[in-house]
Amino acid sequence: MKTVYLDNQSNTKLDEKVFEVMKPYFTEHYGNPQSIYSLGAVSKDAIEEARRAAADLINAAPSEIIFTATASEANNLAVKGIAQGLKDKGRHIIVSAIEHFSVLNAVKRLEKDGFEVSYVGVDKKGNVKEEELQKALRPDTILVSIQYANPEIGTIQNIKKLAGSTKKSSKAAFHTDAVCVCGILPVNVSDLGVDALTFSSPVMYGPKGAAALYLKKGTKIVPQTDGGVQEFSKRAGTENVPAIVGFGAACKTAKQELEQNANAKRLTVLRDKLISELPKRIEYIYLNGSPQNENRLPNNVNFSIEFVEGEALFLLLDAKGIMAASGSACANKNLKMSHVLDATGVDAAIGQGSILFTLSKYNTQEEIDYVLEEFPKVVQKLREISPLYSYFLKTGKRKEAGPGTDFEHEHKDSE
Amino acid sequence: MKTVYLDNQSNTKLDEKVFEVMKPYFTEHYGNPQSIYSLGAVSKDAIEEARRAAADLINAAPSEIIFTATASEANNLAVKGIAQGLKDKGRHIIVSAIEHFSVLNAVKRLEKDGFEVSYVGVDKKGNVKEEELQKALRPDTILVSIQYANPEIGTIQNIKKLAGSTKKSSKAAFHTDAVCVCGILPVNVSDLGVDALTFSSPVMYGPKGAAALYLKKGTKIVPQTDGGVQEFSKRAGTENVPAIVGFGAACKTAKQELEQNANAKRLTVLRDKLISELPKRIEYIYLNGSPQNENRLPNNVNFSIEFVEGEALFLLLDAKGIMAASGSACANKNLKMSHVLDATGVDAAIGQGSILFTLSKYNTQEEIDYVLEEFPKVVQKLREISPLYSYFLKTGKRKEAGPGTDFEHEHKDSE
Repeated sequence: MKTVYLDNQSNTKLDEKVFEVMKPYFTEHYGNPQSIYSLGAVSKDAIEEARRAAADLINAAPSEIIFTATASEANNLAVKGIAQGLKDKGRHIIVSAIEHFSVLNAVKRLEKDGFEVSYVGVDKKGNVKEEELQKALRPDTILVSIQYANPEIGTIQNIKKLAGSTKKSSKAAFHTDAVCVCGILPVNVSDLGVDALTFSSPVMYGPKGAAALYLKKGTKIVPQTDGGVQEFSKRAGTENVPAIVGFGAACKTAKQELEQNANAKRLTVLRDKLISELPKRIEYIYLNGSPQNENRLPNNVNFSIEFVEGEALFLLLDAKGIMAASGSACANKNLKMSHVLDATGVDAAIGQGSILFTLSKYNTQEEIDYVLEEFPKVVQKLREISPLYSYFLKTGKRKEAGPGTDFEHEHKDSE
Repeated sequence: MKTVYLDNQSNTKLDEKVFEVMKPYFTEHYGNPQSIYSLGAVSKDAIEEARRAAADLINAAPSEIIFTATASEANNLAVKGIAQGLKDKGRHIIVSAIEHFSVLNAVKRLEKDGFEVSYVGVDKKGNVKEEELQKALRPDTILVSIQYANPEIGTIQNIKKLAGSTKKSSKAAFHTDAVCVCGILPVNVSDLGVDALTFSSPVMYGPKGAAALYLKKGTKIVPQTDGGVQEFSKRAGTENVPAIVGFGAACKTAKQELEQNANAKRLTVLRDKLISELPKRIEYIYLNGSPQNENRLPNNVNFSIEFVEGEALFLLLDAKGIMAASGSACANKNLKMSHVLDATGVDAAIGQGSILFTLSKYNTQEEIDYVLEEFPKVVQKLREISPLYSYFLKTGKRKEAGPGTDFEHEHKDSE
C-alpha cells in the first residue's frame, strides 16, 4: 500500500545519512563523555562538535547551547528555570494563548508556586496581538515566552518585533519556542534579540532524544535536573551521545540546505497546492491560520472540515496510507477542539473536524496528488453517514450545538 | 593496542543484539507514539513492550514504570516529585551521605524551597547506619531516599530492612536509587517494600537516553517536566522510541542472564582476583567499601593508593589501554576526594589517589591478568617521581597535609 507521511511536525523520518554518522557512537565509541580516558574523550569531542553545529544553525556561541532530551524539557528549563532565576525581581510571566503544552503547563505549575501569568491572545490568523503584549508588560514582568511559529496552524510570529517591544518596555527575559522553525527557515538569535530559544532534533530529520535550549550568555537560569556537571552544570545526566551526534549532523545538513533555499521553496509549492486545491474539491472546508503567502510555515496545511468527525477522518485516511494529525501529538486524545483553534475563534463544532498536514523534504508532488484524490473521497464517505450533514442537506440549516449534539459528550462515550 | 574497559559503572558497551532490536525504530518505524495512525501505533506498541520488560525485571506492574532520559532525571523526579507531592504532610527529607549527586543536589534544591534535609552517615565499609536513620525519622518526614548500592565503593545496603524500619516509624515514602544493582543482581520491588526505585539502561548494556522510575501505584508525584500526556502525564516530551526499545531489550536479556546467574558469578571471580592480587603486588594500597564476600557489588573494585596522584594514574593507565575511573563520572573533575570516601572516613591525602574498576560481562580473565601486570608498574613509576613517597622512604614518616602539601591548592593550579 502507498504510504504518505504528513505528520512531520510531530516527528520526521530520520535522515539515513544522519543515522550513519550516529552508528559508531552506539557500540564502538561508547565512553561516558565525562570520563578522562581516551574513549571518554572521543564522546566528549563528538558532543562539542554537535554543539558547534547546533550553535552555528542559529548564530549562537557553542557555550550558549544546552542539550536536553526533548523540546518539552528545553521549554520547561527555559520557562521554569528563568522564572526561578529571576524571581527576586518579580513574579509576573507573559505567554501567548497558543503556546505548546510544555510552555502552558510549565507556567501553570509556576502559578501554583506564586507566580502570576498573563495570556496574550491572537487574531483569527493566529498572530499574537502586540498591543495586548504591550499592555500586559509590568515592572515585575520577568519573562515573556512566545513561540516562533505554531505547530498546528503554522502562523509565524514577528519575534524580532515582539522581543524588541518587550525589551523596550520591561526588563523581562524573552524566550521563544522555535521548534517548528529551526531547520525549516533561517534563524538568527542575535538578530531576533531573544534571551532563550528552544529547538529540537526529531522535527529536523535528526533522531529522537535530543533537543536544545539556546541561552544567551549571562542569562540567569535555575537547572531543573540537578546532579552532575554536564551541560555547564545546567542540565545534569549522562549525555545521550549518539542522539546529540545525530542532532549535530542534522543541524549541519539543515544549514547547508537552508543556504541552498531548496526545501522551503519546494515545500511551499506542495503546501500551496493542497491549500488551493482542497477547497475546490471539498465544500464547507476552512483554512486555519494565515493565508499561504503571509507568515505561514512552508510545510503547514490546516483545515477545519464541517460535518465530519475527527477520529473517523484519521482512521479512514490511515486506511488509505495517509498519515496526518489533528493537532499536537502531545495533546490529550479526548477530541476536544485544540486550544490553538479555540484561541483563533474557530467554532467548536467545526474545529473538532480539523486536519493538520505537515510536509517534509521527503514528500513528493505525486504524494500530494494522491492526497488530493483520496482525501475528498474520505470526506464524502463520512458525510454520507453524518446525521448533521443530512440535517443540513434537508433543512439548509446547521444544527446548533446543544444537548442533542454535544460533541464533547458524544466523544467521551466513545473513548 | 590492547584496550581494557573497566568503567562499566559509568557506562557499559551497548549489547550488539540490543542495537539490532533498536535499528528499525530509527528510519523505519519513526512514528510519534502519541499519533493515532498505524505508524504511531507501531511505536506505541514497542514502548509498551519495553515497559512490560522493564517492569518484569523488578517485579512491578507496567503502569508503575515511568520512562525518563537519564537516571539523574529519574532521581530528580522521584526526590523532588514525591517531596512536592507530599509537602502538605511535612517538609522533612532523609538521605544518606553517599547518594549520587542527582539525589544530593536535588535535595539541596529542595532545601532552598523550604524543605529540611537530614543526612544519615555510613560506617567505614559504607553501610548506612540504621540507628541514625531511626533517630532521624520524624512525624513530618515525608521522604527517605537511600541508594541500593553505591557506584563508587560498591556497598549494597539492606534496603528491605531500611525501608521496613522507615515504614514502621513514619509515614514517609521510600525511594532507592538502584542504578548499580538492576541488571546485575535480582531486584524485586514488592519484596523490598519501596515506593520508588530508579534504574537505568546504559549501565546494563542498553543504550544511553533511557532510564526509568518505578513508582508504586498510588504514590503521589508532581511531574518535573510539564507538557503533554506521555508517561501517564508524569513525564512530558516525545518518547525516545529507539532508546526505550533498546532499554526494554536490555531488561529482557538481563532477566534471562540473572535467571542463569552466570554473570554475577563470573564477575565475582574476576573482582576477587583483583581485590586479592593487587595488594600482593602494590604496597600501601587500601580497599574501599566492603570486603569481597560481604554486601559488595560483584563488579566493583575500589582501592586508595598512597603516594600517587589521581590524574596521572588515569592518564598512564589510559596509555596502557586500561580505562578506569576515580569515582562518579558526574562529579566535578577538581580531584577533590569524593564525598563517598569522605563519608567512610578515608584520609584525604590517601583518598585522592583512588581508583575504581567496574567490570562488565564482556571483561575476560585475560584482561584482568593484564591489569594485574600493568597496574603495579604504573604505580611504581608514579611513586618514583613522588616527593611524598621519597620523603616517606627517607624518613619512614608520612608528610602531613598542610600548607606545603595542600592537595586541593596544587590541583587547582594544574586544572
